[in-house]
Amino acid sequence: LRADARRNTERIVEAATAVFGEDGAGASFEEIARRAGVGSATLYRRFPTRSALFEAVYEEQVQQLVASLPENLTPQGALEEWFRRFVRFITGKRAFAEEMAHDTELVREARARIYAIADPLVHAGHEGGFVQPDITADDVLRMFSGVGLADYPRAGQRDRVIEICLRGLRP
Amino acid sequence: LRADARRNTERIVEAATAVFGEDGAGASFEEIARRAGVGSATLYRRFPTRSALFEAVYEEQVQQLVASLPENLTPQGALEEWFRRFVRFITGKRAFAEEMAHDTELVREARARIYAIADPLVHAGHEGGFVQPDITADDVLRMFSGVGLADYPRAGQRDRVIEICLRGLRP
Repeated sequence: LRADARRNTERIVEAATAVFGEDGAGASFEEIARRAGVGSATLYRRFPTRSALFEAVYEEQVQQLVASLPENLTPQGALEEWFRRFVRFITGKRAFAEEMAHDTELVREARARIYAIADPLVHAGHEGGFVQPDITADDVLRMFSGVGLADYPRAGQRDRVIEICLRGLRP
Repeated sequence: LRADARRNTERIVEAATAVFGEDGAGASFEEIARRAGVGSATLYRRFPTRSALFEAVYEEQVQQLVASLPENLTPQGALEEWFRRFVRFITGKRAFAEEMAHDTELVREARARIYAIADPLVHAGHEGGFVQPDITADDVLRMFSGVGLADYPRAGQRDRVIEICLRGLRP
């Protein structure tokens, strides 16, 4: 892709993430194009189907999830920061997750990358004594998947719930 | 209702709870009738629509949720036992919750009864020092709603996750 085409794609994915989050999976393509500052024709050329756009948004969200953590974190700080990120990921894909095919290479690969991060973080927690020894990475991922799926109408509520869960990991 | 009609209704609701849990909201009425040991005609006479049966199952699940707790529990034991029950409730209604109308008298009343139990339990936790002071009953209900919605394919996983969350409530 030429640089300006790439920039358009980035803008579309960013706008789509926001608009799906606000209006759900059925959000208007026109609104996404408007928000991205591109014409509808450009949007449809780049993403001919709704599911192509879902996949692009999902892929972008996975990229953010697996991006490096700040290097100055302690092992416990890294674990906590990453699972906060994971809840944002789950919440972000809620809008369209049901509409997306799940048994795809894309989703399977994302799952593998997620476990490849969560497993060593939780293992470090066992070694460092800041995660209960009987708790597995899979337990923690499933707990936070649930937490990310719930509705939190009050201010700060999702964050308070995340902190409850993080505290509960400790022995 | 005559006593045998009442007994049939109870058997149907119990069978429907199990069959919806196994086969989802679209579960076969014939299978429910078979499991309840009643004829299909009896089932359809008592529950002419699928949603009537959903509501009966839901009502039964609410009854179990709001039933008295054992009297020998400490305030902390009562809180923990009730929220374990609440997760079972959320998990139990997962199969058909999406198919059920939510803005009904039945659901609003159930919600009021749930808060009428959760509020004093969490308040007692603040007073007794076993729940962090900034955590509200609504936070705890929403956390466990999320936890109850997640999938737990491994043995004991749901229970481990519940215990993480309960531990995290403590100061």
